[in-house]
Amino acid sequence: MKKVAVILSGSGVFDGTEIHEAVLTLLAIRQHGGQYQCFAPDKSQLHVVNHLTGEEVVGESRNVLVESARIARGEIKPVTECKEEDFDAIILPGGFGAAKNLCTFATKGADCSVDEDVMAVCKAFAEAGKPAGYACIAPALAAAVYGNNVKLTIGDDEATAAGINKLGAQHVNCQVDDIVVDTEVKLVTTPAYMLAQDILEAHAGLNKMVQTVLGMQ
Amino acid sequence: MKKVAVILSGSGVFDGTEIHEAVLTLLAIRQHGGQYQCFAPDKSQLHVVNHLTGEEVVGESRNVLVESARIARGEIKPVTECKEEDFDAIILPGGFGAAKNLCTFATKGADCSVDEDVMAVCKAFAEAGKPAGYACIAPALAAAVYGNNVKLTIGDDEATAAGINKLGAQHVNCQVDDIVVDTEVKLVTTPAYMLAQDILEAHAGLNKMVQTVLGMQ
Repeated sequence: MKKVAVILSGSGVFDGTEIHEAVLTLLAIRQHGGQYQCFAPDKSQLHVVNHLTGEEVVGESRNVLVESARIARGEIKPVTECKEEDFDAIILPGGFGAAKNLCTFATKGADCSVDEDVMAVCKAFAEAGKPAGYACIAPALAAAVYGNNVKLTIGDDEATAAGINKLGAQHVNCQVDDIVVDTEVKLVTTPAYMLAQDILEAHAGLNKMVQTVLGMQ
Repeated sequence: MKKVAVILSGSGVFDGTEIHEAVLTLLAIRQHGGQYQCFAPDKSQLHVVNHLTGEEVVGESRNVLVESARIARGEIKPVTECKEEDFDAIILPGGFGAAKNLCTFATKGADCSVDEDVMAVCKAFAEAGKPAGYACIAPALAAAVYGNNVKLTIGDDEATAAGINKLGAQHVNCQVDDIVVDTEVKLVTTPAYMLAQDILEAHAGLNKMVQTVLGMQ
């Protein structure tokens, strides 16, 4: 049974992990015969967004690991405890948290930096040649991790794609229910809610991404 | 296309809606050809629980509707705006929120009361003879709504079942991947994470519950 490390970035599309993407990823891992362990950085979120109004809640602070624990039903560890040698693959669902809490792409674009601990973990999987799946906006982070003209997708948004290409990646436009695979570095990406109008559309691409990651040697 | 009202109770198993159950319910509704609208009461949660430690966060307050909006990606309305005539069915996923924020079963057991607005909505569907699905601990609320020896399940926990029977229901033990159907009142219940050890187990019962609710005339 293949073991997958899943890196979360909070709980909620506007300031953390996109919840549907996370749950559909966990479901797909189990449906395709794998098992998972969730991780998240133990630090404050960039900010808190009221998901009813879409507005920032000034003065409120939440912790990425503590909020991610809501998705993981408490079964989660700090990302510093994620050891590449314990897993066969790594997957990062999307949501703004991937671009706000795991790296600074949401505010800095191509000048972004990646959380040091997250970078160390993602780099370890890349350097070990282990398969990785990045969904939605998380491929921006993959661009920083892999660089070197790595092929990936966030869908078809031109401005976002341009920013990702400046980070050294080669963005490929992709339909919502499909994936882009860089076979050389074993990176699988899918647009998910960067394009999805519906949970069925997100599910189709995410399921294909997980199946492909788990099928890689 | 059948329209389903989904009632949420926050976002996170220990103080709100169980996130996996909610997302798997939404997925199943769409997979079986329905569409959904999420609702939640616009009021403070009973309390906030740190999902990493399992401990109550003293002094912190969160709003049920605002937190539920995380699961619904912002597409949610106050439960007072849920009109039975606009929908073909109603579904309540579980999580402690169902027994802490929608009713007081978690703290009062058989002496519980149900949130007035939630009660009015659930009663309206019951009185119209429209199908309903209640998962996990939410059947405790169904017992208060339907009473009259209604058949339902929360799995096989004896103390919880006894409390539910005191509310006037007839608890039936049930396997994690199965459902209990009261055909007379069109109520479908499943244990979900009252028994599930794994997202696959929760998915099996929830999918069967949603399919059965949508298949009822």
